[in-house]
Amino acid sequence: MSVLRGIRKIEIALFLLCAALPCSGQQLNLMPWPAHIARQQGSLALNGTPRILLTGGDERVHHALKRFIRQLAVQTGTPFDRSFGKPPQGPLFAVQCAGPGLKVQALGEDESYHLSVSQTGIKLTAPNPLGILHGLQTLLQLVQAGPNGWIIPDVQIDDAPRFPWRGLMIDVSRHFMPLSALERNIDGMAAVKLNVLHLHLSDDEGFRVQSKKCPRLTEFASDGLYYTQAQIRQLIAYARDRGIRIVPEFDVPGHAVSWLVAYPKLSSGPAPATLVRSEHDTLRPPLDPTNPETYKIINKVFGEMEKLFPDAYFHIGGDEVDAKYWNNDPKVQAWMHAHNIANAHALQTYFTLRVQKIVAKHGKHMEGWDEILDSKLPKDSLIQSWRGADSLANSARLGYKTVLSAGYYLDLMHSAAYHYAVDPLGGPSATLTPTEQANIIGGEACQWTEYVTPEILDNRLWPRLGAIAERLWSPASVTDVNSMYRRLTVLNRNLQWLGLQQNISTRTMLGRIAGDDMPLPLLVTLAQAVEPVKDYNRETTQVYDVEQPLNQLVDAIPPESNTAREVNALARRALLDPSARPELRKWFTRWSNNDAQIEPYMSKSFLRVRLIPLSQQLAALGDLGLAALNNIQADRPISPEKKQKELDMLKAIEAPHAEMFIVVTPSVRSLLEAEPVTSSTTAQ
Amino acid sequence: MSVLRGIRKIEIALFLLCAALPCSGQQLNLMPWPAHIARQQGSLALNGTPRILLTGGDERVHHALKRFIRQLAVQTGTPFDRSFGKPPQGPLFAVQCAGPGLKVQALGEDESYHLSVSQTGIKLTAPNPLGILHGLQTLLQLVQAGPNGWIIPDVQIDDAPRFPWRGLMIDVSRHFMPLSALERNIDGMAAVKLNVLHLHLSDDEGFRVQSKKCPRLTEFASDGLYYTQAQIRQLIAYARDRGIRIVPEFDVPGHAVSWLVAYPKLSSGPAPATLVRSEHDTLRPPLDPTNPETYKIINKVFGEMEKLFPDAYFHIGGDEVDAKYWNNDPKVQAWMHAHNIANAHALQTYFTLRVQKIVAKHGKHMEGWDEILDSKLPKDSLIQSWRGADSLANSARLGYKTVLSAGYYLDLMHSAAYHYAVDPLGGPSATLTPTEQANIIGGEACQWTEYVTPEILDNRLWPRLGAIAERLWSPASVTDVNSMYRRLTVLNRNLQWLGLQQNISTRTMLGRIAGDDMPLPLLVTLAQAVEPVKDYNRETTQVYDVEQPLNQLVDAIPPESNTAREVNALARRALLDPSARPELRKWFTRWSNNDAQIEPYMSKSFLRVRLIPLSQQLAALGDLGLAALNNIQADRPISPEKKQKELDMLKAIEAPHAEMFIVVTPSVRSLLEAEPVTSSTTAQ
Repeated sequence: MSVLRGIRKIEIALFLLCAALPCSGQQLNLMPWPAHIARQQGSLALNGTPRILLTGGDERVHHALKRFIRQLAVQTGTPFDRSFGKPPQGPLFAVQCAGPGLKVQALGEDESYHLSVSQTGIKLTAPNPLGILHGLQTLLQLVQAGPNGWIIPDVQIDDAPRFPWRGLMIDVSRHFMPLSALERNIDGMAAVKLNVLHLHLSDDEGFRVQSKKCPRLTEFASDGLYYTQAQIRQLIAYARDRGIRIVPEFDVPGHAVSWLVAYPKLSSGPAPATLVRSEHDTLRPPLDPTNPETYKIINKVFGEMEKLFPDAYFHIGGDEVDAKYWNNDPKVQAWMHAHNIANAHALQTYFTLRVQKIVAKHGKHMEGWDEILDSKLPKDSLIQSWRGADSLANSARLGYKTVLSAGYYLDLMHSAAYHYAVDPLGGPSATLTPTEQANIIGGEACQWTEYVTPEILDNRLWPRLGAIAERLWSPASVTDVNSMYRRLTVLNRNLQWLGLQQNISTRTMLGRIAGDDMPLPLLVTLAQAVEPVKDYNRETTQVYDVEQPLNQLVDAIPPESNTAREVNALARRALLDPSARPELRKWFTRWSNNDAQIEPYMSKSFLRVRLIPLSQQLAALGDLGLAALNNIQADRPISPEKKQKELDMLKAIEAPHAEMFIVVTPSVRSLLEAEPVTSSTTAQ
Repeated sequence: MSVLRGIRKIEIALFLLCAALPCSGQQLNLMPWPAHIARQQGSLALNGTPRILLTGGDERVHHALKRFIRQLAVQTGTPFDRSFGKPPQGPLFAVQCAGPGLKVQALGEDESYHLSVSQTGIKLTAPNPLGILHGLQTLLQLVQAGPNGWIIPDVQIDDAPRFPWRGLMIDVSRHFMPLSALERNIDGMAAVKLNVLHLHLSDDEGFRVQSKKCPRLTEFASDGLYYTQAQIRQLIAYARDRGIRIVPEFDVPGHAVSWLVAYPKLSSGPAPATLVRSEHDTLRPPLDPTNPETYKIINKVFGEMEKLFPDAYFHIGGDEVDAKYWNNDPKVQAWMHAHNIANAHALQTYFTLRVQKIVAKHGKHMEGWDEILDSKLPKDSLIQSWRGADSLANSARLGYKTVLSAGYYLDLMHSAAYHYAVDPLGGPSATLTPTEQANIIGGEACQWTEYVTPEILDNRLWPRLGAIAERLWSPASVTDVNSMYRRLTVLNRNLQWLGLQQNISTRTMLGRIAGDDMPLPLLVTLAQAVEPVKDYNRETTQVYDVEQPLNQLVDAIPPESNTAREVNALARRALLDPSARPELRKWFTRWSNNDAQIEPYMSKSFLRVRLIPLSQQLAALGDLGLAALNNIQADRPISPEKKQKELDMLKAIEAPHAEMFIVVTPSVRSLLEAEPVTSSTTAQ
């Protein structure tokens, strides 16, 4: 205790010292971090509604300023959005936008802005409305509570994105996402300066946009869950207002069972009778590229959709075509022979080139997953690299524009730090010439929704998406992981002011599992120590099935445990600094005790019964940790055999259960590895 | 530790014992508790979407069944609301409604229902759609997670309300509440079977409904914050669908500055130039009851509003008329003299009777606050008692129907237990004859909004409103406070599935105060130990002002601290049971240590600086508690002087700061009072 008090005194002393230096003041928690920022001493008092002086821009700037004031009010809990019959009384806020933007937001429009905050007021300038939109988000992130009221620190910011394509893909086919879920996530995307929402609108599980020309698509292949064309227009307007393009994807020729349910004649071989509901539904033929009807229907649907979606890019999917259906279909084989097409890849390229012509007829560029890559494609095609960074480099080398998604799959449950380390110009792309590198125009996070319902969506996107957004916006040199996590934590909380539900949904879903009887803190102790299994490992124990409820602990918890990160770091610190050990001991003790307390409740509910082994493992981990801590503390050596046994136990503790695994094991591993070993065996 | 382990074993043993008895199974957490309930052994497996067989009812039953399935899906995280192309596979659910209800829901319509759940399915019958609506809410509250899936315990419920008028009043004049806030709270009201939403639509701060006949009312007296007539119709339909009547109130002749801003000529004496913004705006004359124009305008507005609001009751306010304006106005005085009207009360009665004729012209009953009570009123008038239970009894005695609000003012920050103890037929009403008692038709919780923004509203209503709802629905014998709190806790969590925000808003508002720098747990420790000051005490240190932000700790915290209730009970238990003392010591230690940890952050933000004395007091309380615990533990007597000093310190600790006060003091008071005293002074 006296040690802790000592530390606290040092901390206080450091704090006072720092407070006296000009460098100090509140920390800035901007995310993404700007290209250039200079922090000046002092800050502007936000003592009333900003007096906005606007020149230039277009309707988006007007809307954005209204939203800015509204958001300022929400975030501060202060009625900046109300006039009370008086003109605004706050600081001057000059907003100068050189001109209007394009009617349809385009790739590569200038997104830069300059923001200065000083005693005389705020000034935000940009060549294009997009820069104004981004600058307003930065400004909202600068607002802080000072000793006497809300303040904005004095800064000079010159900012522009590193990449012009900064996207998020959401799969709305496997689990349909209502418009409200997309809209609030568009608000979140705008907050971190993302600019492309790619909607995966059709797949084996459903076709999700009303087609007036081919109404069978939603009538027979949507379960009634689709967007009307009016809703799509509303969504596009909503996104445009926030500086975000909507890129639609209709996946062909694979992942197209929904097309086949509506139009069985387009199938390669027998068509499935119903939509895919589960991993067990294995009949998933691609479209028949040898059937002229296929192109007629695609022409009708794509023609209609290319009008509905104004963006210059149109995504045709093209991924994961299962060649066996073509190889086993005598009709297809005969046609390939007759047309001198050697194999399935060549057949897909034939198909892609025909579809590309349809896409191009409406003045659009074709986009597709990296399977479509072929040097025969027109050079305005865009390749989305998902199978690995190699396809990104290959596309760039072949002269195609390309965006990186490999490494940005949010559904694979990796940490923010994992995604943060993935740089579109890193890996194989680092060896490209500057001209080739210029073809790499950005990246796109992907959220596939096999295991994601609307209730879970925000939790699977945020806050990790903020780290990817920073990678795509900020200079390549911005790589400090600790700083990233600190700012990500602040972002995560501030996103709540936009109505994003990642934190709320975890809490309410934990409450559902705890039910009326179980004390929530016991469940929280377990929940904070585990993460969902990574990559595609969930499939190995829980077959994907759209009818299956997603209400288990694995669905409730965030993909990344903050507790694990903190405790694992605490353990590393505790090895060098004994004063950190009491805190570590508390954690071990809590884990050790939790299982006995939780046990009586576990078998009473089917939502809890599968957690029993996890809880037992956590207790065992706590015991291991306590023993190791005691040995280290007492400098009491153990035999190498004993150490090996402990390490084996630790390995067993790491085994997954209920699609989760314990992620606080590194805290104990650090100690085990540092445990002193008896000298009799050091000679080995 | 071994003591704790011992207790845990006993608990587990008790649990196993209980599990073997037929009485056991999961606890039922219904709120309000039904009139008659019989729990049978066993439960029904909710293994799919219920197969509904509906007979009778009206469109409300259809809508309610759709909402029921949707809500079942939300609450369980299970897609009961999706068909996947198949008919429902779950248990049979027979819904039989004898007939349609009235086109306009009326006071006294039969709200009873019978619900039975057994192995063969669910059966819900009711004479009227209202009973079906209530029964569905009960059914939702019965659903639980069993060992193998969702279950509904076998029960027989015969239920009907004790009182036909079970209301909530929301003041939307002082702080305007958007439609969405009202709608989600209507969902909450329906969940606890309340049936009247009374909207206080005009006051000195604004007139909140569009009047087409007198558009000046919103043009000049609403700050642009009002409901359009289309929105009102939408709200009424929304409420009707959920078994809730909307009773509008337009407050006259006092609380009518908004009328005077629009029509200055109606003022008694000089009219205010602007709406009331703050307690400092003291010019608040009532309407001039001697001016014929007054009745012309009232006739126009009330005529229009009585058509807009279909309910049979129309509330004219009538409260808190400040007589000085009439007494000091020579014109009014001359008129009173000429018309032989003795005093201000008589003048108000003259006014009320004229207004009643206007109300009655449209076939409505007049309702008013208890100041309007006068034996000259027609017997169909309804009196809302707010100044005390006496006026309730008086009204009933005079033959007027009456509802109780005294004791149900949620804005006064009392506990759920406080409100729960207030019975409309208790106090002076207990002495009435049965015929007189029959005039007491229920009660209404009131939420005045001087200190309530939309962000705060849910937190100020819930969960306490559940306790009042139970008092008004359940038999008078249902009074177990512990059971109430247990079920209220479950209700509070389940309300989240309806989108109610009482828990979320507390967390986000605490996050705003903690800012980017302060560890939230430190703030939570303080927040859980305090409550807002009660009754009208906030006004004494913070003048009400509509322009003032409501973003302080007092605004964030719930009106009632669960922690305080638990710790105070723990301390009482610890006196008798030493095994409860380690847990109590943990609390005292946490309070004692919190201030030093929190201190460096406090003065950095204006949202925290006023909390410094509270935090210091909490530390002092922790120290007092630790000292007393040590003395009790060691059976070490202290001198009476020392004890008196400690009690004086405790009293000082109870002093409010920043509109809050520490409410965990009883935990220490219990110990101080039990501390052994030196024998030298026991002789005194």
